[in-house]
Amino acid sequence: MNIIEKLNWRYATKEFDSTKKLSQEQLDFIIEATNLTPSSFGLQPFSVIVIEDEAIRKQLKPVAWNQPQITDASHLILFAANTNLSEADIDKFLKLNSDVRNIPLEALAEYDGMMKGFIKQMSADEIINWEAKQAYIALGQLMVSCAVEGIDTCPMEGFDKKEFDKILGLADRNLTSVVMAAVGFRSEADKYQHLAKVRKSKEDLVIKY
Amino acid sequence: MNIIEKLNWRYATKEFDSTKKLSQEQLDFIIEATNLTPSSFGLQPFSVIVIEDEAIRKQLKPVAWNQPQITDASHLILFAANTNLSEADIDKFLKLNSDVRNIPLEALAEYDGMMKGFIKQMSADEIINWEAKQAYIALGQLMVSCAVEGIDTCPMEGFDKKEFDKILGLADRNLTSVVMAAVGFRSEADKYQHLAKVRKSKEDLVIKY
Repeated sequence: MNIIEKLNWRYATKEFDSTKKLSQEQLDFIIEATNLTPSSFGLQPFSVIVIEDEAIRKQLKPVAWNQPQITDASHLILFAANTNLSEADIDKFLKLNSDVRNIPLEALAEYDGMMKGFIKQMSADEIINWEAKQAYIALGQLMVSCAVEGIDTCPMEGFDKKEFDKILGLADRNLTSVVMAAVGFRSEADKYQHLAKVRKSKEDLVIKY
Repeated sequence: MNIIEKLNWRYATKEFDSTKKLSQEQLDFIIEATNLTPSSFGLQPFSVIVIEDEAIRKQLKPVAWNQPQITDASHLILFAANTNLSEADIDKFLKLNSDVRNIPLEALAEYDGMMKGFIKQMSADEIINWEAKQAYIALGQLMVSCAVEGIDTCPMEGFDKKEFDKILGLADRNLTSVVMAAVGFRSEADKYQHLAKVRKSKEDLVIKY
């Protein structure tokens, strides 16, 4: 497997073939690859919202600049940050840690203190922003993983997050939209797949010390 | 290639084998994989700082909680946001686009307007935050790509970014530190490689619509 080839194969798919859907196995793969993403402290302070429902997607489209990916992709994978991250979330995470690794909770006291201290010194906005960054790592991991498996993606930041939150009732779940990827299979008609990739020269991108 | 296996193989490496260095080919691979990361508009509004110099790493270590990865990893890959993103950067990007895709600049006028309008409506802090998020996608792509190639990484947010900026003279380059990955090869002694991965259950991570 040449990963550079796969990364070159990948592009931000604009036109999806709406007749091609991810299999259950492919969908499970996407969730698993996303779930395996590393995050700060391992806390995974976000939710992954998998949107397939056609009626909902029709509602979302106009608040996402009417981009055709919204309705034509097989699924939308929306990352949403936790608007109510609290000590209870950290306690839950520590309990999971203790269970999975068979470590007594008391042995995790330092970890506990570090995480609670970290979130305590941030404002609510700073917490959401830090959570959002963790979701962006997951977006990166998702897109590479999909490319390796021949699944197309389109990362999407350009949508009205407040309207998405309303349509999906995210406030009731203490969540807020962060970033999204449309996933599925490219249409043969999508001209963007044939365009050369535009990237900085190595000299422009990299500084060495 | 089973990517899920590779993602399970990956962990946040705490102890690197300081005798093992990336080959030039591996370093080129890392830069290429990072450069291929998608970004908003394709703008790549960040720099990738590759740090190998031992004396500099000794200076960085105390302002990164004395974490051993700083000096023991083969290299540090630091992402830095552009503190002075301007219309000139967009013009440069459009020129590159025009050259690579052989499209007259005039045909990119709409794209030009969209990008300039987008950055104009953000404050300086909002721009840096948006750039930082693009760097986090690159961090995700970098870590997966490395895992596929059997290269270890440790993502690092916990360092004094202002001190890093000072030591590396980043202000003079209109850059500021965002996030970092230590890259190299795990030490056989690193006990963390043997710990079970702690991840949310699918039920806890995923919401379906």
